[in-house]
Amino acid sequence: MFTGLSAFPLTPLRDDAVDHEALAAIVRRLVAAGVDSITVLGSTGSYAYLDRAERQAAIATAVEHADGVPVFAGVGALRTKHVLEHAADAQDAGAQALLVAPVSYQPLTADDVLGLFTDVVEHTDLPVIVYDNPGTTRFAFDDALYARLADLPGIASIKIPGIADAAAAHERLRELRELLPDRITIGISGDAHAARGLAAGCDAWYSVIAGTIAPPMVALTRAALAGDHDAAAAASARLQPLWDLFAEHGSLRVTAAIAEHLGMATRSCLPRPILGLDDEQRRRVHAVVAELELEA
Amino acid sequence: MFTGLSAFPLTPLRDDAVDHEALAAIVRRLVAAGVDSITVLGSTGSYAYLDRAERQAAIATAVEHADGVPVFAGVGALRTKHVLEHAADAQDAGAQALLVAPVSYQPLTADDVLGLFTDVVEHTDLPVIVYDNPGTTRFAFDDALYARLADLPGIASIKIPGIADAAAAHERLRELRELLPDRITIGISGDAHAARGLAAGCDAWYSVIAGTIAPPMVALTRAALAGDHDAAAAASARLQPLWDLFAEHGSLRVTAAIAEHLGMATRSCLPRPILGLDDEQRRRVHAVVAELELEA
Repeated sequence: MFTGLSAFPLTPLRDDAVDHEALAAIVRRLVAAGVDSITVLGSTGSYAYLDRAERQAAIATAVEHADGVPVFAGVGALRTKHVLEHAADAQDAGAQALLVAPVSYQPLTADDVLGLFTDVVEHTDLPVIVYDNPGTTRFAFDDALYARLADLPGIASIKIPGIADAAAAHERLRELRELLPDRITIGISGDAHAARGLAAGCDAWYSVIAGTIAPPMVALTRAALAGDHDAAAAASARLQPLWDLFAEHGSLRVTAAIAEHLGMATRSCLPRPILGLDDEQRRRVHAVVAELELEA
Repeated sequence: MFTGLSAFPLTPLRDDAVDHEALAAIVRRLVAAGVDSITVLGSTGSYAYLDRAERQAAIATAVEHADGVPVFAGVGALRTKHVLEHAADAQDAGAQALLVAPVSYQPLTADDVLGLFTDVVEHTDLPVIVYDNPGTTRFAFDDALYARLADLPGIASIKIPGIADAAAAHERLRELRELLPDRITIGISGDAHAARGLAAGCDAWYSVIAGTIAPPMVALTRAALAGDHDAAAAASARLQPLWDLFAEHGSLRVTAAIAEHLGMATRSCLPRPILGLDDEQRRRVHAVVAELELEA
């Protein structure tokens, strides 16, 4: 279940409340495009900004419209108590796995994070995806902690940060395969690094952009998993203007601007204080959407 | 009101719920020691981990036991909607000012942060303290943003990060006095930097340790504000073993270990996943408490 393309949709807001109609329509588009799974309430799904009831309702909407495609749910929170509440809610709402980010305010130690994942697996029947992204969580995993986490039952996959160099990616995947049991899949994140990560042997792509614009990302993933890494690399290279926008403004603001431009969300769909891109920035996003024919 | 020593108490937990009896006793100790104000729900007060009801109840407890000493309340949250809810709750609970931290998950722009503070001052009658601490919020203010914030009515004080060098501190305060109107006070944070900040002309010390161990910090502040900066510097130098522990483990975990050691909170008073210091680390904290006679 933790292989192929997992699409991370936005959770669009409208008048500062979750826009369930928009979320449902996005989920139906992802299903139609043939993604392998849908991860709601990732960083792209603004999990950190939503309260408990909003989160459970968003998961329920996604499950209702996913037509059997597995739905994974982000349940991260600063406090373990809240993570466990979200995990129970996600299971009740029909999620098939949990994405757990060790999000921090006070810096966390490795023992804190091991304790968090231990508490989660003891309180849920669902498989757990470990979210490793120091850029958002401000926690840096090391291999000793990976090894300790791999001993916990229920850890099913690790979402690793992007790796900027092909040789480094191959070396890193070799190390991880030695470190981790076969039952734990490895998924690449950082959309610009996806083709390289899949070529290096990742099992999955945990993708921001595929949560909004899925078809080219499905094609890229299918090519890579069929072994045609030249085609996947070419597909990724073609999207370089999009990756450049992600690098400049962050993937969330750019993806939200695309969704708003294409009518998939209303203007200002991100939670305040995040204002989204300004008009000049949006014009550049719209030009890239047209150039890459992302509206298709 | 935004001058002198503002003490930031812990919000001790017991069995994963706010220990109001412990909080009340801490507040009464601060009042007895003669602090100028009490800021509940700062970073030291674990605001980021507490839900809305817990926050309002903690403020109410502090106000009830503060015997007229002004109580300020941290109201930070990732989403503006929640900040405004906390601000209204704090006012209802009797807080006399709001501490607003531009805490972030997705990186914020200067326009986002200006929008946040604009929304806050439009929705509250209470004066606002700007919390500038990139180490916890991951947002770095610049002087252009300070100047724009200073134009907002209701901004009463800025809590600035510590400055490691005396000459740099004097130069920075000179710059800030030019930039900011007289009605906005400047408070130093980073306890190890307090004497230097007050010598450089800060009006206030926003203090972590004074929220748990107040008397020596009151004495240091009184000396500095009376112009006896040599005495303040000597008082700070005497506390160097404590500052070294803060640098090594962070001020929160050390302060919690001190409070637990002195019976002001029960063991594991921090919100999980934060486990607090281990036994060996605690032995070193206890030795410093004895050496510096902090239990007095």
